[in-house]
Order: sequence, then C-alpha cells, then structure tokens
Amino acid sequence: MNIRTIDWKNNSVRIIDQTKLPQKLVYIDIGRLEGLCRAIKILQVRGAPALGAAAALGVYLGIRNYPGSDWPGFSRKLKAVAKYIAGSRPTARNLFWGIERACAVALKNNKQPISKIKRIILAEGKKIMREDASSCRKIGFYGAKLLKHNSRVLTICNAGILATIDYGTALGVIYSACAQGKKIKVFSCETRPLLQGSRLSAWELNRQGVDITMIADNTAAHLMAEGKVDLVIAGADRIAANGDSANKIGTSNLAILCKYHKIPFYIAAPISTFDFSIKSGKGIKIEMRNSGEVTRILLKKEIAPPGANVLNPAFDVTANHLISAIITDKGIIRPPYIRNISKIFKGNKCV
Amino acid sequence: MNIRTIDWKNNSVRIIDQTKLPQKLVYIDIGRLEGLCRAIKILQVRGAPALGAAAALGVYLGIRNYPGSDWPGFSRKLKAVAKYIAGSRPTARNLFWGIERACAVALKNNKQPISKIKRIILAEGKKIMREDASSCRKIGFYGAKLLKHNSRVLTICNAGILATIDYGTALGVIYSACAQGKKIKVFSCETRPLLQGSRLSAWELNRQGVDITMIADNTAAHLMAEGKVDLVIAGADRIAANGDSANKIGTSNLAILCKYHKIPFYIAAPISTFDFSIKSGKGIKIEMRNSGEVTRILLKKEIAPPGANVLNPAFDVTANHLISAIITDKGIIRPPYIRNISKIFKGNKCV
Repeated sequence: MNIRTIDWKNNSVRIIDQTKLPQKLVYIDIGRLEGLCRAIKILQVRGAPALGAAAALGVYLGIRNYPGSDWPGFSRKLKAVAKYIAGSRPTARNLFWGIERACAVALKNNKQPISKIKRIILAEGKKIMREDASSCRKIGFYGAKLLKHNSRVLTICNAGILATIDYGTALGVIYSACAQGKKIKVFSCETRPLLQGSRLSAWELNRQGVDITMIADNTAAHLMAEGKVDLVIAGADRIAANGDSANKIGTSNLAILCKYHKIPFYIAAPISTFDFSIKSGKGIKIEMRNSGEVTRILLKKEIAPPGANVLNPAFDVTANHLISAIITDKGIIRPPYIRNISKIFKGNKCV
Repeated sequence: MNIRTIDWKNNSVRIIDQTKLPQKLVYIDIGRLEGLCRAIKILQVRGAPALGAAAALGVYLGIRNYPGSDWPGFSRKLKAVAKYIAGSRPTARNLFWGIERACAVALKNNKQPISKIKRIILAEGKKIMREDASSCRKIGFYGAKLLKHNSRVLTICNAGILATIDYGTALGVIYSACAQGKKIKVFSCETRPLLQGSRLSAWELNRQGVDITMIADNTAAHLMAEGKVDLVIAGADRIAANGDSANKIGTSNLAILCKYHKIPFYIAAPISTFDFSIKSGKGIKIEMRNSGEVTRILLKKEIAPPGANVLNPAFDVTANHLISAIITDKGIIRPPYIRNISKIFKGNKCV
C-alpha cells in the first residue's frame, strides 16, 4: 500500500486530511494537541484503529512541552491530556485504548527522568502504528479464507487503509484475498450522512485496483434480493464482551438484511476494539453528531427545510446473534461469543 | 391543504417544480408534451398518483394541436402520444393507467367530432385530478384508524401532497389522523439518492404543522431498535396481483427491518396502483437511473472518485409477506393478498 493514513513526521502527527477526499489527497502535519483533537472531531482522521494511534501520539503532543521534571506534576498533566483526548469522540474503543497504552508505559516508567518518559510515550505511539499495520495484515490473512474467487462483498463506511495505518480491517480482508489472486467484486454503501463509503472506500478500492461499485445505502436490500451479494464485511468501533458490535450507523441495518436473506455478516476488527468493561451493546455510548451533517451535504449544500429536526447518531449496535463471525488479528471468533471472546483473551487460538 | 401539486391552468399543466424544493416553491406552466415528459423524467413532477394525472393531461397536450378531423389519423396520433409518454418512466403503474384512461374515453367517443374528443380527453384528465383528491382522502380516512394518539410513524420518500394532487397517500393517512386530533410524530428517511424525504416530505409535513424529524436512511434500524417507531407507512408505484409492491428504493429495506423488529409495515396507495397483468413483484420493471444521482448530490456536488461505477435502481420490490396491510381508497386490504386484492376489484368491501 503506497499511502499511509497516519504517521510521525517532522516532530508532528502527519495525517491525510480525509475531508478533502476524493477530490484531493492532502497530508497535514499537526504539532499541537488541540489541532489533533479538532482533526479527530471533524473527521480529518477517523476510523477506530487509526484513532488508537492518533490518541497515543496525541498524548505525546500534549505532554512533550511539560516544563517540569517531577513525576506527580507530570502525572497530573498526563491525566488532563488523557481526559482532553477522550472527550473528542466517545464511541471508538481504540481511541481510549491508545490513550491507556500511552499512560500505562508512562506509569510503568515513572522512576525514569521526565524527558525519558516523554520519549517512551512517543515510542509507544510509534509501536502502536507498527502493531496496527501488522494486525491489519493478520486480519486480512484470517479473513481472506472466508472469501472465494469471484466473491461479491458488500461493505459500509470505510474500514480500509484510511481507517487504519495503511491496510484496513474489512477492506484489508478484501486486499488480502485479492493478493491471493482471488477476483473480488465490492459494493460500497455510500454511507450517509458523511459519505465515507463513496468518498473514501470507493476512492481507495479504486486506487488499489479492486472492482468497486457504489450504491446508495437504500439499495442494499434490493441488491441482496437480486442475489448479487455473497457476504457483508464491516469494521467496528467498539465490541462488547458478548460480541455486540458498534459500527457506523447503518451497519445493524445490513446485518438484519443479511439475516433475512441468509447472507453471512462479518465484523473485522483488531482485538483492541473489544471492551470487556461492557457486557452488551446496551452499554455502548453512541455519539450523537450535529444535525448539519444530515440537513446539508458535507456541511455545504442545504437539502432540508430551515430548522428541520434531525436525529443523527453516528453509530448503531449490531446484536451478536446477527454476526456470523468476528475476524480479528488473533483469528476468527465464531459464536457462542461470550465464551469464545473470553477464550481468545486468555491466549487460546480460535481459528 | 393550500398547495396543489398539479393543476390545469392557462391552457397548460401547472406543476410545482419539485427540483426547487425545499428552497423555493415555484410553479411552472407546461404547454407542450415534450416539456411535460421532460418534467416527468427529471422529477419536477413525481409520485405515482400525480403521474397518473400528469399522463392523462399529457395525452391532451399531445393531441390538442392535431390538425385533422379523421378518427383513424387521430387514433394513430393518440397511440404515438401514449407511447411517448409511457417511455418517460417505466415503474409507476399510475402513469400507464392515466394514459389508458385518456385513450379509453377517446375510443369510447370515436364517433364524435375530433374537436369534441379532444375536450373529452381534457375532461378526463381533470376528472382524474378530482378523483385523486377524493381517493387520497379516502385512503386517509381508512388509514387513520391504524394510527393511535401519539403514534410514531416512519416513512420514506414522499407519498404526500407532492406525490398526488393535494393530499397524499402515506402522508394523507398522517394528515387525516392529525385532523382527528391525534398527535403524530413522524420520522422521514431522507431517501437517497434524490432526497425526496428531506427535501419534500420534511418540507410539506413541516408546512402542515406535523412534528417531523429527518434521519439519514441508515438510521432506521437504530431508531427501531431503540423502540422509537410504532409503524411504517410507505407509498407504492406499482402493486402486483399478489400484493408485492414496488416503491422507492429502500422501502423493502424498511419492511425487512419491520419484520425483524415486529413493527407493522403498511403500503398506502390508490387502487390505480394495482397491476393485475403482473402476478408478482418479479414481473415489475425497475427503472435504472443515471449514476450522477449517486456520485453527485442533486447532480451538483461531486462526492465520488471520477469514473466510479454505480448501480442506481430507483425502486425496489417489497414482498407481500412483509406487508401488514395495503391501505387503499376502497379500504384496507389485509393478507391473504391474492384473494383479498381480487375481492376488492370485484367490488366487495374489504374493511
């Protein structure tokens, strides 16, 4: 893959500004924590795994100019920074996981000089990026087994290169199958309101030479009824201990359509997406975003009457019984999920 | 209702240019058949029942300047005009029904002078408009019984004033319930690609003082899972003899979600929407529209990479077993549909 969604360059977090796609591929360097959190809020960088790396690097941006050399003061600053980043977006588990990883290495090394702790935090952010690149390839490796030659895959939102460091989760599975020589046809739901499916997934799949057809989100049921979809793969932003999975609004819709049409529905996500503190999807906090995303197209063209009421949840939760399997970097987890998810976290193989 | 979607004024067909809504309420007078067919194709006028009236008036526009006074020549012209109008949009049954009505009165009066036949055709167009206004109110009357005080109704596309002469089918049911003093909360799917839900339904419901909230199409499953939807009502463009109903793309999606969430799903349509020549939904021709509707927003703002493949069916078919009842101007038809639809056409009451 010749593009990298997030990187550490020029002492800054370098990201692709995803609000400019598909028209322009623009990289921006962000040196301040406030700028990074703004980029996360307005979705210049998005995608749960990418947010994990962004959050860890954000911790470094937040503490690198801490002037003191005392652990208690540094620790307070670290907590404030962590809280600030955590307030940017509530649903993606990986964002919190990235913050926790950065804070954990600091705490573990709290006897070291502050300057060294700072370097250790940066190193952890870089490590998360390396791990993400590797874990996406593992997800791709395991998931590709589920795709046959000539499989027709429907996906939603963007769980690709642009949602990770450089490979993708749901789309990583497709890239991996293609790399094995399988011919794969992809349908991408455009994914209103913010059109990540048409703007981002169609763009990167096309760039990678994958056969991609865009559809309005409304077309999914018709496509399935016509027998044109063999399987659905979506990413995830947070997975509860029982397998209930939060992902882009519209994902649970597809899972229900799959159930009705007897089509397999898969979630692809690294294990950093699992949240054991949450027993089921009911405990997952769903981010509500502003109405302008719906009343206007990409916050520009008005399409609704003035003052229209809008309900704009960014995510929905797909119930575990609708999920055929969860493709992770540790292997494929199948039902019963409560048992099999807990197994994988105890180090057992699951494939 | 103080707006009228289609009318006969100044020797022309007066329509609301629906491509200008919700920003501007613009009426245009169309005096030539070519202009009317263009208006139908680009959806300046749309909605199955409105298309029935537009088609009949279109027949008049097409033949009114026929210079001859011979029936055979006039009849050939009539057939050519009918064929031309029929080519504008393939799915709405009412369009063909409107053409057939106009042609049938001409044939029935073929002994009359051509000038008189022309007036009879115009009169038939006007009669269809009156009948539509009346049949929508009957649909509203029957359908309102299904809505309780505080019912929360989800709808898709626009089956309202703007899809009929002046009252609506699915939205007519809501207006009728509101007129009975029931408090109704409406959710309107924005209805990509052409956003009839946000542009048209949200506009007219708001104008009529109905509590309306817009959602992205993707949000429907989430809304149902949260217990916020009591029933779904949609219009129809063509209903097969077994009750399978073609309507705006995304409708079958909602019907499947309703089945899963155990929520009633209703179709509201005049009996002119039924097509007895078609046994089941498989026989319904689905109009494929141009990719620009998906790759661009309202044919303007580009949202997709250049040259993106697109599949853009304008309609889908909802299988009869997913439909709780069909609300018509002759009463409410419930399953088993093959028997009960055929009954209603034999003049039996069905409520």
